[in-house]
Amino acid sequence: MTSRRNPQLNAHGELIHLLSIEGLPRATIHQILDTAGSFLSVNDREVKKVPLLRGKSVFNLFFENSTRTRTTFEIAAKRLSADVINLDIARSSTAKGESLLDTIANLSAMHADMFVVRHAESGAPYLIAQHVAPHVHVVNAGDGRHAHPTQGLLDMYTIRHYKKDFTGLTVAVVGDIVHSRVARSDIHALNILGVPEVRAVGPKTLVPGDLREMGVRVCHDMAEGIRDADVIIMLRLQNERMSGAMLPSAGEFFKTFGLTPEKLALAKPDAIVMHPGPINRGVEIDSVVADGGQSVILPQVTFGIAVRMAVMSIIAGNLC
Amino acid sequence: MTSRRNPQLNAHGELIHLLSIEGLPRATIHQILDTAGSFLSVNDREVKKVPLLRGKSVFNLFFENSTRTRTTFEIAAKRLSADVINLDIARSSTAKGESLLDTIANLSAMHADMFVVRHAESGAPYLIAQHVAPHVHVVNAGDGRHAHPTQGLLDMYTIRHYKKDFTGLTVAVVGDIVHSRVARSDIHALNILGVPEVRAVGPKTLVPGDLREMGVRVCHDMAEGIRDADVIIMLRLQNERMSGAMLPSAGEFFKTFGLTPEKLALAKPDAIVMHPGPINRGVEIDSVVADGGQSVILPQVTFGIAVRMAVMSIIAGNLC
Amino acid sequence: MTSRRNPQLNAHGELIHLLSIEGLPRATIHQILDTAGSFLSVNDREVKKVPLLRGKSVFNLFFENSTRTRTTFEIAAKRLSADVINLDIARSSTAKGESLLDTIANLSAMHADMFVVRHAESGAPYLIAQHVAPHVHVVNAGDGRHAHPTQGLLDMYTIRHYKKDFTGLTVAVVGDIVHSRVARSDIHALNILGVPEVRAVGPKTLVPGDLREMGVRVCHDMAEGIRDADVIIMLRLQNERMSGAMLPSAGEFFKTFGLTPEKLALAKPDAIVMHPGPINRGVEIDSVVADGGQSVILPQVTFGIAVRMAVMSIIAGNLC
Repeated sequence: MTSRRNPQLNAHGELIHLLSIEGLPRATIHQILDTAGSFLSVNDREVKKVPLLRGKSVFNLFFENSTRTRTTFEIAAKRLSADVINLDIARSSTAKGESLLDTIANLSAMHADMFVVRHAESGAPYLIAQHVAPHVHVVNAGDGRHAHPTQGLLDMYTIRHYKKDFTGLTVAVVGDIVHSRVARSDIHALNILGVPEVRAVGPKTLVPGDLREMGVRVCHDMAEGIRDADVIIMLRLQNERMSGAMLPSAGEFFKTFGLTPEKLALAKPDAIVMHPGPINRGVEIDSVVADGGQSVILPQVTFGIAVRMAVMSIIAGNLC
Repeated sequence: MTSRRNPQLNAHGELIHLLSIEGLPRATIHQILDTAGSFLSVNDREVKKVPLLRGKSVFNLFFENSTRTRTTFEIAAKRLSADVINLDIARSSTAKGESLLDTIANLSAMHADMFVVRHAESGAPYLIAQHVAPHVHVVNAGDGRHAHPTQGLLDMYTIRHYKKDFTGLTVAVVGDIVHSRVARSDIHALNILGVPEVRAVGPKTLVPGDLREMGVRVCHDMAEGIRDADVIIMLRLQNERMSGAMLPSAGEFFKTFGLTPEKLALAKPDAIVMHPGPINRGVEIDSVVADGGQSVILPQVTFGIAVRMAVMSIIAGNLC
Repeated sequence: MTSRRNPQLNAHGELIHLLSIEGLPRATIHQILDTAGSFLSVNDREVKKVPLLRGKSVFNLFFENSTRTRTTFEIAAKRLSADVINLDIARSSTAKGESLLDTIANLSAMHADMFVVRHAESGAPYLIAQHVAPHVHVVNAGDGRHAHPTQGLLDMYTIRHYKKDFTGLTVAVVGDIVHSRVARSDIHALNILGVPEVRAVGPKTLVPGDLREMGVRVCHDMAEGIRDADVIIMLRLQNERMSGAMLPSAGEFFKTFGLTPEKLALAKPDAIVMHPGPINRGVEIDSVVADGGQSVILPQVTFGIAVRMAVMSIIAGNLC
């Protein structure tokens, strides 16, 4: 049975947590994207709220600061009419030496219905999901270098929105693949959805050859990596990689792997350009491209709210 | 008249603020516990919100950080449908040199309905209650070493839930009594509710003999302190006491006063173990006890939400 | 056409942003004050909420900390039933090097309906208003030394409330005029509303002669400045001006320009005393005056909530 290996699904195969895209059935991903699509019209209506999580308490547990991601979950939960409690974990009991599981047990005893968890440690959301009561749901909002599944899902929503069908696409993921939970979630999702060619593009320090085990084509040459691509996903270059052993310099990276109009011209004429944000203009992407007609970076943000509403309402509905 | 001495009650003896358990009529305490009981079913319902404070503005004024306590009040207020405003006092006008009473006057002018106040200075919530307009209510969420009345009330709810009647009980409060506002509130409540034997258990540095004035039996011997107890309330040992003049070491404290299964065996077989949290595993309590069948530490947390909802709705309803 | 020069108004002359009082039509100011008046009864009702912004998402973007001002906007938005998202900008992507306009573009893509912006740079709210989509509205909550229009409007509400008619008044603004966005907004509003005599009162370092260009009478003598005034607006003396080149000392400032009962006696007998808060007792104002019968400092705070509700509901209703 799937449920034994996959703690995200209940005995009926229904989604009860979102921890990772790895191991999600293709139908579950499409269910999330379809539900997100139905919420998008909600976002354009005058009154955007729906009562699907009315009376539910959603806790944002950000052990790692991320105002942007926390805000998207807060908006999504409020549009579902949930009560949202933001916990500043850095200053809470955890700082007093309380263990992660004791913190979770206490918040559960306050009748939390959902935890949205970001944590620097890979696997922390799994640990939490294993210890919560059956009526409590967990969403991984990014754990270590492991996974960022809602980002992966919103990227899939974006690709489906613009390209309709996954089965004929070439998708290039460009940049610091090895340290990126976004890349990892995207690659798993693209594989599950049947994308025939997924390329991991970047220097050897950031895109080592063993990434081939994830079912990607590794390209250390930018031209080869984006030639005839339908979709280009640029990753944010973290500041801490920009100097030292990993990379010669930000300028050098831009020259070789930064997405300029010239390089973009190698992709298909209708290729779309994606980025999880926040963008580093002039580091991994040229402003002309970021603001250009092929960029779908801002629609990604809009779709992200709808995808998070979809995930939250689906897992909350699967009470087992 | 009671109201002259007790600023918590109006001229009709109704509760309008919750500042301290000291001086509360026994009937008022039972009214709060009864009301909390009626909210507990609310917490198990699908939609947990009740509209009792709809349209009211509750301000969390935490002059001292406490994410855990602030969260319980935020949840309680939101489940009563109040608007909750969390003020980060450390960064506010108070830091600019505005006095406490000027801050309160300004927030009152914004039509605050309730202040939940935590302050390092004993008596700060009294000072505030003396200066607010008649329609504004104050809840003490912990002031200095003085009082933590909602913790005291949730502890009484817990004891009543498991032991039904207070009048035959032996209750042991163990640990750092002298610095604990929780202990102080618990002891006052136990006295008011007619508990015949309340014991204060711990080393002489943390349980000085003059505590006897509070109507407790002082025990410097752990075995004597918990023998035949019905209820054991373990207190959190603050880090700053663990070294220096007060205590030889955390390890030494655990050896003598830490609650282990062996020591717990001295209490009545159906004794319950309580703790205000967050627990220090291996300092004041053994994990086997904290997670064991006699521990009611997590139910305390659940009851705490209901008790805070009860306090807030009762004082808001007593408009004079 | 007005709309070309004034980005606050749409093609029909309707208010769509509130960026500055400068350039607002007198009728628009009166419309805001009239609307605020209608909300004031709301603040006294048992249920204070009105559903005018139900389902709208209001983002508090405070690039400069101000708990007090942020709180007034949060309360106002919640009383209009909006969803409020407070962004701690100092810790957000902006800190990661994202530009102001990229931050705004991203939040807009999350379907923000309104931005309440405080920024240390004069003009930042204008820049934002120029780049948001037509359905998004911007309120300036204070930008650099430039403007603080909602403070100016609540000051006008206060004056109209107590003095009924602007056209016969003498208004003295006292203190650090040159660094004060409040003074600037007040002076523009008083001019637009037809106050015949506006005086800027203070030492030459804080009230330079070229302020006359704003249509005020510059007074370096306190007695001359407040004699026969109907309204005295005392400004907060910022700590950083109290020593050094600008002023000899706080004590010296109080002696010369601090509002004492003796100096207040020079004004009209029914003069009102205003202050934007937080007050520095004994620096710019004597406690006897601040707490006295002519002080309307706390009513200003109450009116401020109603004025902010008025501004938010008016600009949200002017969808173009």
